[in-house]
Amino acid sequence: MNQRLRFPVIILNFKTYKEATGASALSLARIAEKIAGETGVEIVVAPQNVDLYRVASSVSIPVFAQHVDPVTPGSSTGHTTVEAVKESGAAGSLVNHSEKRLRLSDIRTCVAKLREAGLTSLVCAGDAVESSAASAMNPDIVAVEPPELIGTGIPVSKAKPEVVSETVERIRRITRDVRILCGAGISGADDVAAALKLGTDGVLLASAYVKSKNPEKLLKEMAEASLGRR
Amino acid sequence: MNQRLRFPVIILNFKTYKEATGASALSLARIAEKIAGETGVEIVVAPQNVDLYRVASSVSIPVFAQHVDPVTPGSSTGHTTVEAVKESGAAGSLVNHSEKRLRLSDIRTCVAKLREAGLTSLVCAGDAVESSAASAMNPDIVAVEPPELIGTGIPVSKAKPEVVSETVERIRRITRDVRILCGAGISGADDVAAALKLGTDGVLLASAYVKSKNPEKLLKEMAEASLGRR
Amino acid sequence: MNQRLRFPVIILNFKTYKEATGASALSLARIAEKIAGETGVEIVVAPQNVDLYRVASSVSIPVFAQHVDPVTPGSSTGHTTVEAVKESGAAGSLVNHSEKRLRLSDIRTCVAKLREAGLTSLVCAGDAVESSAASAMNPDIVAVEPPELIGTGIPVSKAKPEVVSETVERIRRITRDVRILCGAGISGADDVAAALKLGTDGVLLASAYVKSKNPEKLLKEMAEASLGRR
Amino acid sequence: MNQRLRFPVIILNFKTYKEATGASALSLARIAEKIAGETGVEIVVAPQNVDLYRVASSVSIPVFAQHVDPVTPGSSTGHTTVEAVKESGAAGSLVNHSEKRLRLSDIRTCVAKLREAGLTSLVCAGDAVESSAASAMNPDIVAVEPPELIGTGIPVSKAKPEVVSETVERIRRITRDVRILCGAGISGADDVAAALKLGTDGVLLASAYVKSKNPEKLLKEMAEASLGRR
Repeated sequence: MNQRLRFPVIILNFKTYKEATGASALSLARIAEKIAGETGVEIVVAPQNVDLYRVASSVSIPVFAQHVDPVTPGSSTGHTTVEAVKESGAAGSLVNHSEKRLRLSDIRTCVAKLREAGLTSLVCAGDAVESSAASAMNPDIVAVEPPELIGTGIPVSKAKPEVVSETVERIRRITRDVRILCGAGISGADDVAAALKLGTDGVLLASAYVKSKNPEKLLKEMAEASLGRR
Repeated sequence: MNQRLRFPVIILNFKTYKEATGASALSLARIAEKIAGETGVEIVVAPQNVDLYRVASSVSIPVFAQHVDPVTPGSSTGHTTVEAVKESGAAGSLVNHSEKRLRLSDIRTCVAKLREAGLTSLVCAGDAVESSAASAMNPDIVAVEPPELIGTGIPVSKAKPEVVSETVERIRRITRDVRILCGAGISGADDVAAALKLGTDGVLLASAYVKSKNPEKLLKEMAEASLGRR
Repeated sequence: MNQRLRFPVIILNFKTYKEATGASALSLARIAEKIAGETGVEIVVAPQNVDLYRVASSVSIPVFAQHVDPVTPGSSTGHTTVEAVKESGAAGSLVNHSEKRLRLSDIRTCVAKLREAGLTSLVCAGDAVESSAASAMNPDIVAVEPPELIGTGIPVSKAKPEVVSETVERIRRITRDVRILCGAGISGADDVAAALKLGTDGVLLASAYVKSKNPEKLLKEMAEASLGRR
Repeated sequence: MNQRLRFPVIILNFKTYKEATGASALSLARIAEKIAGETGVEIVVAPQNVDLYRVASSVSIPVFAQHVDPVTPGSSTGHTTVEAVKESGAAGSLVNHSEKRLRLSDIRTCVAKLREAGLTSLVCAGDAVESSAASAMNPDIVAVEPPELIGTGIPVSKAKPEVVSETVERIRRITRDVRILCGAGISGADDVAAALKLGTDGVLLASAYVKSKNPEKLLKEMAEASLGRR
């Protein structure tokens, strides 16, 4: 496991929202950096790859790529290498997000390449069965995100708690070495608390933060909710 | 057509070579900037997307992305939007490189999105027939690159001149509004001269520049060869 | 061009509808065969590939595959070769249907392989621009089908006649050697007549036939409408 | 688990070899049927999907598809539904062959759909780690096939026995409910015996059978070798 990450963690996926692109990506990352500093909670931001260097070279919190390609440096025009992600200053990468699903064999390659480079791998999966398969490939983190709830504002930790607890249970039968997050619909501090109570190590969210009228306030409340656990 | 680009042009694709990633991407871009300044020849560099901002915010020559995704900003984690490419300071993008082939309908979408954003589109194609199909979608530039010669050091402009001239002929039957480049195996000044004689507006190359022991000398010779045309 | 096909033509895509799979595919093909015999109109059926042999070895009208892969016979498990399609008795194949979009370079390969095997290629495209690009690769037939109308019952020939006429115009600037069909929302005899008036050589339809309570009556009316042209 | 399959099993993948397409697919299937009858050993053939009905409706041994798509019947032109595979008379399907790799989430969907239809699912994987991930999705069978040995004639059971035994070990930590095969380079009776000694329930092979000058003799020897185990 990459040394840099502490748990519980809040991971903010910027997707390709206009409100989180370019200079705006940097602003949203700086708010996250501020709240991480104030609360002591680990917060990670994941801007789109074009913005990775711009963000990672400017903030002190961990920055993740949203995707890496399972390629070796060289003749792979248009792809993103783990090596470039590392050199940009990023600390890890999402793998297999529901909006960028990968082949089983490519997930395995990406996880291995990230590990080799000393970067953290976070594999997304859509349900408990997929999550357990992901965990068998020994990533650092697995995040369960039912695709039907992504972007809805209906939090998985409240609407489908059984998906989260079944995920924890299935993964734990296979390995104790992977951290488990949940995502999809996470909108407020309550959802974070509910996620941690279900046995996860944190949350993954996107639109609720990116589109918030007051992202600083929202994130502070979420960070404090995550501290309630300890 | 985007106003910024002049022809003939030399486009340097950095692919995902280690020698052209991160700080090294910037060094190779600065050499290109220097030669462009000294010779007055238009030179474009195309680093991988993670390095796009780092390079485009540091040099004054045009910088291209190697790939854009045909998506609308929002829920498309792991993709690259035209909007992010534009905000990084880039001037255009390759589309459909032989190492990142796209669906016909996605090429059409990418070309339209780049045009709308005021960015230059360069669609790659593998032979004269594919090139003519690409030209029917009205990109700014089409580059013909027989995949079997890419990375070989055997220049298409010498080894398969008939592919280049057939490409020019087929495209011209469809439109006069697209610029035509050739690539694959372009290694020296002679290959550039040969390409221009065949009726193209420039060349696209990668390994010959990236892996050169003296990229500055090579590029200067190529730039001068391209001036011999006028 | 494959000799067997006459125009105007009505092409019935069975997609993967349950009502058009297995024994039901054969029944729907036999109805088409009957109407083709009674009216003298060329009618083609396109069942899913698993049903191709079953249908093609049982009816006398032309049968098309819904998709072929751009592979050479050998190590391509899970793919469909043009050679197998031919040996099944099929007369041609759809290529690049909106539900199975292909890369530009793969469309080009499929069209060439079908031609070489003496089979008819029908390339689908989503609008006039994509259709003109498709026509530059010299398939036998191009079918324009705006994806947003597919399956709606709103016929392109009535709702967006300008898409059809622009397609005809753009293609004719490139080649006179390709036949042009239109599809998407074709539901009744009127839509067929409208399509032919716009300068096409026939129609491509799916759900209206497959889900009809009286497919025989519907097809007979459509066939007769297509004769009204001559 | 589908009731029809007995172990040890020999699965013959016809890929898209010309020698195993159309009428030739049927001949090779009939030889397999004969040897299965003579030896009592379970032998399965997997022709390409276009030939599935032709073979499955003619022989009494189990026939597998080489691939199914994770789609629901309806608007999925060019895809292969589990429903069509079942109606063709097939007993199961390969999933995720190294020549047709699938996304993790699609493997999960295909396995579930095959189970629901009463068909056997055989998920291929490239090494022990991928195999264990595959087993977490509860298919009936997992086959480990190191891609670098496929088609070489160098049998995995002899050249890389540790890959096979590590696969067995990793899978058994997760589940006892899945059967394990090995493939890649399986060429003769010895390789079958070696595979069974390593704890597998059978083999998957292609070119050695399809390209054999005497497929009947080869298969008989393999079948007898598999009996030596009991």
